Amino acid sequence: MKRTVAVLGAGSWGTALAIVLADNGHRVTLWGRSAETVDEINARRTNRRYLSDAVLPAGVTATTNLGAAVSAADAVLVVTPSHAVRDVVRRAAPHLRDGVLVVHAAKGLETDTLKRMSEVIREELPAPLGRRVAVLSGPSHAEEVCRKSPTTVVVAAEDHGVAQEAQDLFINAYFRVYTNPDVVGVELGGALKNIIALGAGLSDGLGYGDNAKAALITRGLAEIGRLGYRMGANPLTFAGLAGVGDLVVTCTSRHSRNWRAGYRLGQGASLEDVLAQMGMVVEGVRTTKAAYRLAKRYGVEMPITEQLYAVLFEGKPPKQAVEELMGRDRTHEWEWIVQVRDAAR
Amino acid sequence: MKRTVAVLGAGSWGTALAIVLADNGHRVTLWGRSAETVDEINARRTNRRYLSDAVLPAGVTATTNLGAAVSAADAVLVVTPSHAVRDVVRRAAPHLRDGVLVVHAAKGLETDTLKRMSEVIREELPAPLGRRVAVLSGPSHAEEVCRKSPTTVVVAAEDHGVAQEAQDLFINAYFRVYTNPDVVGVELGGALKNIIALGAGLSDGLGYGDNAKAALITRGLAEIGRLGYRMGANPLTFAGLAGVGDLVVTCTSRHSRNWRAGYRLGQGASLEDVLAQMGMVVEGVRTTKAAYRLAKRYGVEMPITEQLYAVLFEGKPPKQAVEELMGRDRTHEWEWIVQVRDAAR
Repeated sequence: MKRTVAVLGAGSWGTALAIVLADNGHRVTLWGRSAETVDEINARRTNRRYLSDAVLPAGVTATTNLGAAVSAADAVLVVTPSHAVRDVVRRAAPHLRDGVLVVHAAKGLETDTLKRMSEVIREELPAPLGRRVAVLSGPSHAEEVCRKSPTTVVVAAEDHGVAQEAQDLFINAYFRVYTNPDVVGVELGGALKNIIALGAGLSDGLGYGDNAKAALITRGLAEIGRLGYRMGANPLTFAGLAGVGDLVVTCTSRHSRNWRAGYRLGQGASLEDVLAQMGMVVEGVRTTKAAYRLAKRYGVEMPITEQLYAVLFEGKPPKQAVEELMGRDRTHEWEWIVQVRDAAR
Repeated sequence: MKRTVAVLGAGSWGTALAIVLADNGHRVTLWGRSAETVDEINARRTNRRYLSDAVLPAGVTATTNLGAAVSAADAVLVVTPSHAVRDVVRRAAPHLRDGVLVVHAAKGLETDTLKRMSEVIREELPAPLGRRVAVLSGPSHAEEVCRKSPTTVVVAAEDHGVAQEAQDLFINAYFRVYTNPDVVGVELGGALKNIIALGAGLSDGLGYGDNAKAALITRGLAEIGRLGYRMGANPLTFAGLAGVGDLVVTCTSRHSRNWRAGYRLGQGASLEDVLAQMGMVVEGVRTTKAAYRLAKRYGVEMPITEQLYAVLFEGKPPKQAVEELMGRDRTHEWEWIVQVRDAAR
């Protein structure tokens, strides 16, 4: 069924998902803050700041008018940086149709409240729409999706019918969409892996090798799984696309902003310089702060997150942080995996 | 405690582990088949065919005399290609001391019997030594270990004291060794990940991107975990260094022979040409055959292994194999993860 979809956020991922939706025959309105970007999309079918090679199909129309974008939509995709989600949904809410489907693809946590994005969205929607919220996540560089390179993602919603509606919207031959009932796990996997990606970049920037990075990814997966489990996620989700899959692609690919930010920090740049030079949001920086606080709240040991927090916000030298991680005195492997179970007791 | 260690196998991994042991102060005898390699090691302290940059410390002496190498040893490390393990252990057995510790670091399965390497070794040892066998595995490119780049591995043995002995032998500041009681899982993780690495190389060789490779790694981990669980492994092992860790490093690094073999196959080379050009053993080719048969024996679905088997041994075009993997009609993510549980019923 062809639908009218509003995509809120004209960054790289929003633009890529707008292309997928238009490829599937939906009428897409892409909302962005920047008049320049919107004009470029409408006039030239490109968005060169965020996706240098992409050409947007005719089925995508861009606008800076949020109310107009959503008022005609059967489905709304929220794909802004996580810190902008609450504000955008709040402003969109009065214009939403009854029964609209809301999917988000933002990978972060709200820094002040430590809430997941679906929680934030639900608080801003009229109550009856709260059940119609889904999250889309998984290993998916926007650049590759635009080239129609095969990609797999998951959509999660508490109501299986809602997950299936979201799946139907996006699925096609190059973009495979799986459903998963575990909203908590899918959202946490997507958010928390950015911390580990920063750490992997740090290790690479310091000149450590693939062996060290593999250790970091493995132990990182264990620690985000521990926190996730404690917060109600299903451990299987961390073994899936929104866990291992997204973690691997983010930690090993040079496309990843979080990896790149970590890499430059490892090479000795300051956080201020790194963020200024990137010109795009680095979700992992905010997420490290949020996860550091969640770890304390839930009493979960997260050594990588703690070391990264010290590097980002307390001026600890990156080399010292990585050495302390390597030198930890646990000797039995399951000591740092099995706490998944202990934490739940 | 300083010990006398025989390292059987002078390939890249054997040479790297001999360097680790010598760095720890042990007296090391490195046995190799090739008189040329042995002479080069003793005369020039290099092994350029297998490790172009390494310099072997004075604590390593090389020999082609297997009996002499093992007869003085407190500990023996078996690190030949997996298909040579039975023969080498059989020939070494009459010369072994009582109470010797036997560690192996071979990542494969015996093709005819489908046995794990510790099973093969135990069959060839005098009965009282059977309890003193351990396996060492994990994400560890030999080249990086020689550069003393931080590396983490696991050692597994049925007897925890034996695992600790092996840990003591190898552990140092750049080579962190964790113990794990799950011999089956550690051996299967190390062997089966080479299949997925071949598949990841194939995907890269065909020009697919990081998104596709992440999907393959994620689903690959699920399928080797399913088989492992069915064969008695603990699922946690596949979430650890010998599972996810080794899989990631093998699938994303150009050091990996199995990835490189898959890459060339993906680019259109024949299996014969690939193997001839490599000049080193590609464990994943034999392991694919063994895993294909194990999957049938245990009734476990292993779609990646099956497609790879068809490419390697039945002439299926790689592109068709990858497309069939992407096009599978499952829609719920857990359908391909949760079989871990179903398979055990």
